[in-house]
Amino acid sequence: MIDLRSDTVTKPTEAMRRAAYEAEVGDDVYGEDPTVRKLEETAAELLGKEEALFVTSGTQGNQIAVLSHCALGNEIILEKEAHIFYYEGAAISAFAGVQPRTLKGIRGALQPSDVVAAIRDDDIHVPETGLICLENTHNRAGGAIIPVENMAQIYAIANGAHIPVHLDGARLFNAVVASGHAVQDFTQYTDTVQICLSKGLGAPVGSIIAGSHAFIKKARKWRKRLGGGLRQVGILAAPGLIALTQHVERLAEDHKRAEKLAIGIANIEDLQLANQVETNILLVDVEKKGITAHEFVAQLKDKGVLANAFGPTLVRLITHYDISDQDIDDVLSVLQHL
Amino acid sequence: MIDLRSDTVTKPTEAMRRAAYEAEVGDDVYGEDPTVRKLEETAAELLGKEEALFVTSGTQGNQIAVLSHCALGNEIILEKEAHIFYYEGAAISAFAGVQPRTLKGIRGALQPSDVVAAIRDDDIHVPETGLICLENTHNRAGGAIIPVENMAQIYAIANGAHIPVHLDGARLFNAVVASGHAVQDFTQYTDTVQICLSKGLGAPVGSIIAGSHAFIKKARKWRKRLGGGLRQVGILAAPGLIALTQHVERLAEDHKRAEKLAIGIANIEDLQLANQVETNILLVDVEKKGITAHEFVAQLKDKGVLANAFGPTLVRLITHYDISDQDIDDVLSVLQHL
Amino acid sequence: MIDLRSDTVTKPTEAMRRAAYEAEVGDDVYGEDPTVRKLEETAAELLGKEEALFVTSGTQGNQIAVLSHCALGNEIILEKEAHIFYYEGAAISAFAGVQPRTLKGIRGALQPSDVVAAIRDDDIHVPETGLICLENTHNRAGGAIIPVENMAQIYAIANGAHIPVHLDGARLFNAVVASGHAVQDFTQYTDTVQICLSKGLGAPVGSIIAGSHAFIKKARKWRKRLGGGLRQVGILAAPGLIALTQHVERLAEDHKRAEKLAIGIANIEDLQLANQVETNILLVDVEKKGITAHEFVAQLKDKGVLANAFGPTLVRLITHYDISDQDIDDVLSVLQHL
Amino acid sequence: MIDLRSDTVTKPTEAMRRAAYEAEVGDDVYGEDPTVRKLEETAAELLGKEEALFVTSGTQGNQIAVLSHCALGNEIILEKEAHIFYYEGAAISAFAGVQPRTLKGIRGALQPSDVVAAIRDDDIHVPETGLICLENTHNRAGGAIIPVENMAQIYAIANGAHIPVHLDGARLFNAVVASGHAVQDFTQYTDTVQICLSKGLGAPVGSIIAGSHAFIKKARKWRKRLGGGLRQVGILAAPGLIALTQHVERLAEDHKRAEKLAIGIANIEDLQLANQVETNILLVDVEKKGITAHEFVAQLKDKGVLANAFGPTLVRLITHYDISDQDIDDVLSVLQHL
Repeated sequence: MIDLRSDTVTKPTEAMRRAAYEAEVGDDVYGEDPTVRKLEETAAELLGKEEALFVTSGTQGNQIAVLSHCALGNEIILEKEAHIFYYEGAAISAFAGVQPRTLKGIRGALQPSDVVAAIRDDDIHVPETGLICLENTHNRAGGAIIPVENMAQIYAIANGAHIPVHLDGARLFNAVVASGHAVQDFTQYTDTVQICLSKGLGAPVGSIIAGSHAFIKKARKWRKRLGGGLRQVGILAAPGLIALTQHVERLAEDHKRAEKLAIGIANIEDLQLANQVETNILLVDVEKKGITAHEFVAQLKDKGVLANAFGPTLVRLITHYDISDQDIDDVLSVLQHL
Repeated sequence: MIDLRSDTVTKPTEAMRRAAYEAEVGDDVYGEDPTVRKLEETAAELLGKEEALFVTSGTQGNQIAVLSHCALGNEIILEKEAHIFYYEGAAISAFAGVQPRTLKGIRGALQPSDVVAAIRDDDIHVPETGLICLENTHNRAGGAIIPVENMAQIYAIANGAHIPVHLDGARLFNAVVASGHAVQDFTQYTDTVQICLSKGLGAPVGSIIAGSHAFIKKARKWRKRLGGGLRQVGILAAPGLIALTQHVERLAEDHKRAEKLAIGIANIEDLQLANQVETNILLVDVEKKGITAHEFVAQLKDKGVLANAFGPTLVRLITHYDISDQDIDDVLSVLQHL
Repeated sequence: MIDLRSDTVTKPTEAMRRAAYEAEVGDDVYGEDPTVRKLEETAAELLGKEEALFVTSGTQGNQIAVLSHCALGNEIILEKEAHIFYYEGAAISAFAGVQPRTLKGIRGALQPSDVVAAIRDDDIHVPETGLICLENTHNRAGGAIIPVENMAQIYAIANGAHIPVHLDGARLFNAVVASGHAVQDFTQYTDTVQICLSKGLGAPVGSIIAGSHAFIKKARKWRKRLGGGLRQVGILAAPGLIALTQHVERLAEDHKRAEKLAIGIANIEDLQLANQVETNILLVDVEKKGITAHEFVAQLKDKGVLANAFGPTLVRLITHYDISDQDIDDVLSVLQHL
Repeated sequence: MIDLRSDTVTKPTEAMRRAAYEAEVGDDVYGEDPTVRKLEETAAELLGKEEALFVTSGTQGNQIAVLSHCALGNEIILEKEAHIFYYEGAAISAFAGVQPRTLKGIRGALQPSDVVAAIRDDDIHVPETGLICLENTHNRAGGAIIPVENMAQIYAIANGAHIPVHLDGARLFNAVVASGHAVQDFTQYTDTVQICLSKGLGAPVGSIIAGSHAFIKKARKWRKRLGGGLRQVGILAAPGLIALTQHVERLAEDHKRAEKLAIGIANIEDLQLANQVETNILLVDVEKKGITAHEFVAQLKDKGVLANAFGPTLVRLITHYDISDQDIDDVLSVLQHL
């Protein structure tokens, strides 16, 4: 099976397994796991933030950010198909009690004038705007890179209104590698950031959130409430450290393969590329084939290729660590013959 | 002062005051206020629902509906400027823990295909769609009437997906009177409905929610939790009963005055009517005057006219029981001379 | 029927009805109801707080206090049968997301050493203590008066730990009149206080919360979210003003009648007074009769007396404005013959 | 350092590390991690439930149980120092919006008559009782075993009232081994159960919740919302499987060492054993020494022994996998010389 459903499906490498095996561990609830600490310190430095915290998933990191930044009854501004809104089970409302104010972005990027208009006045009828969330790269916009300039504009607006900015950077390093920008070119325009170790970077489990000392103190308690305060979790931090320090540059290969796949698909009749492929995500519209995305995905599966339905006629393909050049050729061959 | 800020500003009539004075009352927490009961029975019959409940405001009625219909972590579908989303302080998320899924309507009406697309699948990543909310007439769409046919379509979709429909009918009787439809032409396509007694109908305080017996049983408890379980509240129900039984037809006068005002404004340079005036609400864009809505509202106030800023350059005017033909002439005169 | 179920069942007096009839009103959501303003100013001065706010019930006032004082995930300390915990439908947890830490009081009074022990450390495993709530008089402790000295001690502890204190003073004026203390003798030891106009004071509907300007600003918004932002509600504030300014002293009569009832009951075999009657509440244990409280209440009802079951064999009787000396004699006669 | 703070501090064994290293893994969000599946199936069978789910901590498992069993505004019954109430940061109220009704147990066991009295009536003023939670062994009661007979009584009451029962069995296997009962002797009297792999059983990270298929379906979604939906987490499940299948019987050694420590402490002047030591937890009162628990813990640390303050003058000591007979002798020697 060639698995293009998500970059989360990567298996840990031999080096990662060995690192887990050999990890020096301690009870991280007491702050005594040296491997976790090393991962957190490395991540904080890399991201240009005062402190970082290991969490078990991107969803957990995002939820902790919302819980730590907001008060009950706040409103948060985010793109209308942002992961935090679209794929986290309404947890921002269920747990933090905040209301999402969703704006239609352009290739995932919030338009500054829309953000200005969406910030609420001090009025008894309306919630306080408590947070602005960005997502880079933007999953449902097809791995689109939010330009540094756009983030700078949003951040200036947010600062002017005394509203913090959180970045869902589950795939931030894809933006870094594809754009040529340094990671801190992006993170300088956010108060807090979440990055995933388990997507393109290939770790088996885990994410990082980073921000100020005060933020991380709050975050640590919310993590405990969510059940994310773990014990000898150096066993996960060790492969995470490899992911963070050794697997960033190689994302370029995923992007190259995605590009190759995109070019191939562009030449297949009845398939239509629905996004401009900038990183490792392709969205393919199968409408012309007269079938649904679910049907197409089922056909692909019969031929040994796994993909995800992403809309009524939209299919998502993602390249990652476990996908080779040969796999791309094979997938294109399958697509041509369907 | 001519007060066009809202139809909520109406003073109770002499008949209403007298009804309050003479009301037979009891402890309504024990269900023993005969005037409240009469109001609730009258409303239930009028709206074509099994049972009705007196609540202290439209917001309270809407919140109770969401709390009674939904489970924690649900998503609810509603128009992107619906009152429940826009003007209720994020209470649906703060209290019920549900996430709004907002759709851009056309003149306040949700598009059936958008609703179909917004209903969530059974998937671990996404919330369950727990409720669809409509608003008729739609305040921020300028008092627009949601057509009965549109409501019928949405209701069919909702039924097919086993999702209840709640109608924020704060100004439902404006839709009734202006469209010529019977009230039950609208309410037949909703599971529950909220109507305000204190807007165009002129009562000092109060709203009604109506639905099945099972719904009202739940609603009664949520009302208590919200602090809306009151004692000898027949004193409010009595004027409410007059509003509901005697003030519906006269909404036509408000609509006629709104139309007259609209025609007048259409002839004033630099003022632009921003909505098609169907009921008692006018939206006026003052952008061409080169001033903000707040500045324009301040100028109007200096001339004895009160209005509400409704956007950066948008001003809302509402006609109601306390506005006479003469007032309309006076307002137009002020507007012409500004 | 002689109705001893609650002091909430009182009917508005002729003077109250007249005041409602004549009340000068305005739209209180815009802060323009002069009667409401007058009531709020009168209450603030009487209670010795910067500002006061009219709310529709004691439950609403208490919930607003918790929402305004606390952050999500806080713990609040209160007596194990406090109204806020026992009778408000878990709303503190459902809405504010706070956890009650209940302590067994002595005649409703929290023991200072228990409060000290219950305040949480700064530890990742435990919630922050966000509020201490007192109740005076204490309903389920049988209308017991919390001594001023006890309140002073709790307040000193709370101040030392930077924790605000809220007083559920639904029946505070009963404590005032029965103890001979001034109302501010009590309220000086609280940051915020809620008093009911509709219990012993006899108004048809309404309560007041009072505190600092900053507190009331927050409270006003939470009131709106709860649906308690009302329009021409001077119609309720007017009788409330009479209740607050003219009905306090007369609570002494209710207490005298309660005492007379207590003495009578003490002489009836098989009935056992379960509380020391200090104000207007009597708790009577019917265990010796070999029947349940519900059965006893049903028997009383057959004889024209209404009371509330308050526990498996416990019955509550309350004297109030609508209970006369003759009623007490009649009730005793019924009790003797049951 | 001899670490008696908690049984959570154990380091993974060589066998566990090797199992992690070699674990067959997959993306568990897609349900494709064979090692996780094996752990879940093994746990379900062992616990006598239809299905089981891996979660990252006991707190997460308990929170998921509350979220899956309860509706917003419910009340849950549990012992006044139960972990779910005492040590989970008020998350039951913050997230699930439920109110704890805490009862004083006897050695951690709820008294059946108290439970009966605490179950709420169907009344508009009070919350619905949505869940009863037990804890076995009971941490703050000093590792006390809740007798099977007690659990049977509570379960019968709960069934009669149609209320589910959840068991926080973080240390259930300590109760199993110490009592000689089979694990299902206990779990037969609960609808759902949480067990920790990372306490006495020695796994680095993880817990299990088990119940019906319908419960686990809900639980899986709440786990996702909490950020506990992980990827190649077989790396944690593999050591967890060893813990569950190979480390249960050896808890007897921890209990023997705890007993030895208890006997030694009983002979030390100024130290008072505060619990009857049934499993691996000792509570020691240092009041007679005239110092606080924190001071005593600091003194112990200086001598190479780690313990936790558990109250103003109470210290908790826990034996576990990494504590040897020699350690016990050394600790007693330190205690004698302090």
